[in-house]
Amino acid sequence: MANPSILILAGDGIGPEVMAEVKKIITWYGDKRDLAFDVSEDLVGGAAYDVHGVPLADETMAKAQEVDAVLLGAVGGPKYDVLDFSVKPERGLLRLRKEMDLFANLRPAQCFDALADFSSLKKDVVAGLDIMIVRELTSGVYFGQPRGITTLEDGSRVGINTQHYTTEEIRRVARSAFELAKRRGNKVCSMEKANVMESGILWREEVQWVHDNEYPEVELSHMFADNGAMQLVRWPKQFDVILTDNLFGDILSDCAAMLTGSLGMLPSASLGAPMENGRPKAMYEPVHGSAPDIAGQGKANPIACILSFAMALRFSFDQGEEATRLEKAIEKVLADGVRTADLMGPEGGTPVSTAQMGDKIIEAL
Amino acid sequence: MANPSILILAGDGIGPEVMAEVKKIITWYGDKRDLAFDVSEDLVGGAAYDVHGVPLADETMAKAQEVDAVLLGAVGGPKYDVLDFSVKPERGLLRLRKEMDLFANLRPAQCFDALADFSSLKKDVVAGLDIMIVRELTSGVYFGQPRGITTLEDGSRVGINTQHYTTEEIRRVARSAFELAKRRGNKVCSMEKANVMESGILWREEVQWVHDNEYPEVELSHMFADNGAMQLVRWPKQFDVILTDNLFGDILSDCAAMLTGSLGMLPSASLGAPMENGRPKAMYEPVHGSAPDIAGQGKANPIACILSFAMALRFSFDQGEEATRLEKAIEKVLADGVRTADLMGPEGGTPVSTAQMGDKIIEAL
Ligand SMILES: CC(C)[C@H](C(=O)O)[C@@H](O)C(=O)O
Ligand SMILES: CC(C)[C@H](C(=O)O)[C@@H](O)C(=O)O
Repeated sequence: MANPSILILAGDGIGPEVMAEVKKIITWYGDKRDLAFDVSEDLVGGAAYDVHGVPLADETMAKAQEVDAVLLGAVGGPKYDVLDFSVKPERGLLRLRKEMDLFANLRPAQCFDALADFSSLKKDVVAGLDIMIVRELTSGVYFGQPRGITTLEDGSRVGINTQHYTTEEIRRVARSAFELAKRRGNKVCSMEKANVMESGILWREEVQWVHDNEYPEVELSHMFADNGAMQLVRWPKQFDVILTDNLFGDILSDCAAMLTGSLGMLPSASLGAPMENGRPKAMYEPVHGSAPDIAGQGKANPIACILSFAMALRFSFDQGEEATRLEKAIEKVLADGVRTADLMGPEGGTPVSTAQMGDKIIEAL
Repeated sequence: MANPSILILAGDGIGPEVMAEVKKIITWYGDKRDLAFDVSEDLVGGAAYDVHGVPLADETMAKAQEVDAVLLGAVGGPKYDVLDFSVKPERGLLRLRKEMDLFANLRPAQCFDALADFSSLKKDVVAGLDIMIVRELTSGVYFGQPRGITTLEDGSRVGINTQHYTTEEIRRVARSAFELAKRRGNKVCSMEKANVMESGILWREEVQWVHDNEYPEVELSHMFADNGAMQLVRWPKQFDVILTDNLFGDILSDCAAMLTGSLGMLPSASLGAPMENGRPKAMYEPVHGSAPDIAGQGKANPIACILSFAMALRFSFDQGEEATRLEKAIEKVLADGVRTADLMGPEGGTPVSTAQMGDKIIEAL
């Protein structure tokens, strides 16, 4: 049987640096655990724009459709701020999400014991926190038509975007959330603004339908998204799985990520429908951005990107045990006080570079 | 000259209780400071629905248009959850905002020294916090057309809402933010998702235009709203005035409110264009909701509602000094350890009812 295939799109800023450490880990799995992958690499974001004039070339898109999993680093940087909307680095990322139909974006917000002090929140509020945010990723206001800016006769302008959801778009991502909840705390809290948006009413009703008809054993609650933001700040441990749409998910998952104080530690998975081989279409990426201010200096923390590969092991390659092994190795390294610059707190630790962190994790494996 | 006029819409849940304390304060100003107001009262929300079958009667709407300021308590309650979207309590509130054209919603997020321990955030992160969020309140996805839920031939449904902003809608609320900034820290941070939404690009460009042409002396920055949520949690003191649209403002202002830990303390003002007498159209309301779980028990904290009246003194009645007097009286009462149930922390204090808190504040005045 052929090895499972991975396409690496390291992207911009610190993307290539953190991805270099993931590549070491992939090699280790091939050498030491007999888990070899066929790895190819290509460009995305500003790096693709520099070469192709677009943030994702058609050939790259085609490759992404064929592999078992895409690993993405990060996109964007000040150099590209002046570009037209249609060729900005983000469009490469959005094209991958849309054309691969990666409708379920899984964003764990976990607080690592060794790092609880890094949160701006009180320790008892966040220690042991473990939330999974399931964000719809291929629809809503990100992709709805009509959209655009129109100039009127008097010279004034109108900007329009459309929030658009269908029954099936809501149901399929709701199923992802309920499935995850079954393997976790068995609770889903769905967030929208059904008090002011009809699309929110549809969201609430369809999520309730999936619950009542397919997952009655999972506990379901609904919350307005503004209250959701409040409750995340007030007492985040009340949540297990949070299910929400593309735009609310963008904001709420970033809010939740920052609660943990460990932004350099948070991975994500974006999953679509099963392919012929049974594996879901999938892309994995760290939650952090391209951090142009520290790019190329060996300062970046590769853990979020490595944990994204752990999610790939679990969700794409059915290697849950190996994923746990990798996660445990990272915990050990942290418990030993090994620290990239972003993790260096008042209590000190052993300062390491991006590459040294990767090496330490491999040692711990 | 006629006394300035106030319409009180106490609404549902704890609304009437907290408003009763505001009425005492208004009476005090008439008796002791020669500042008499013509006060009338009417129904909004569920209370209006119970009597009129709609959450805001046309006659009430007409009255609101005529007075110098509306004071609103809170709307909503479980009893009304089953109502159709079009007559839910919230529609009464949204109708007032829209028909009075109250485009600038001012939401201070302030942390009161005596209460800094109540925040789920570390004390040094929030102590002394003083942010002003300016949220656009009459446009965006809250009111954009087309909207609604359509059932297709196959029985599936589509839910649609429209984010819609014009040049003038953005510019006028931007002016409000810059004006406020000039009287504060002289900094505005504008938040949108210009990286994924064209309406966000328009927002950014028009805010920049107002800055460059009318307020070049104010410091302006732009931030994506998801990063905004992160930065609010990470280090909120980096902000002075935050300017954002209706929907992002809903979420970000609730997030900011919860940072302070003093939800029962936060007022808001919604301002429109100047009327003939030079006063802006205005409505003032606490940020907290109707809290049906504690309604009618004398447990509610009236301070947010009283501070909303202080904002009315400042923004509608040109009585900045009297507003400060009222705010100082509240600070004193808190410093003396007087506490409604929601403010009672481990360090103790003198427990008081809603009415007793009102009395203490009058004593301090
Ligand atoms: C980069 C940007 C287009 C993207 C988004 O808005 O979805 C990012 O914020 C994210 O959350 O992955
Ligand atoms: C009650 C609701 C309609 C309202 C809103 O969404 O604007 C509330 O959340 C607010 O922020 O004032």
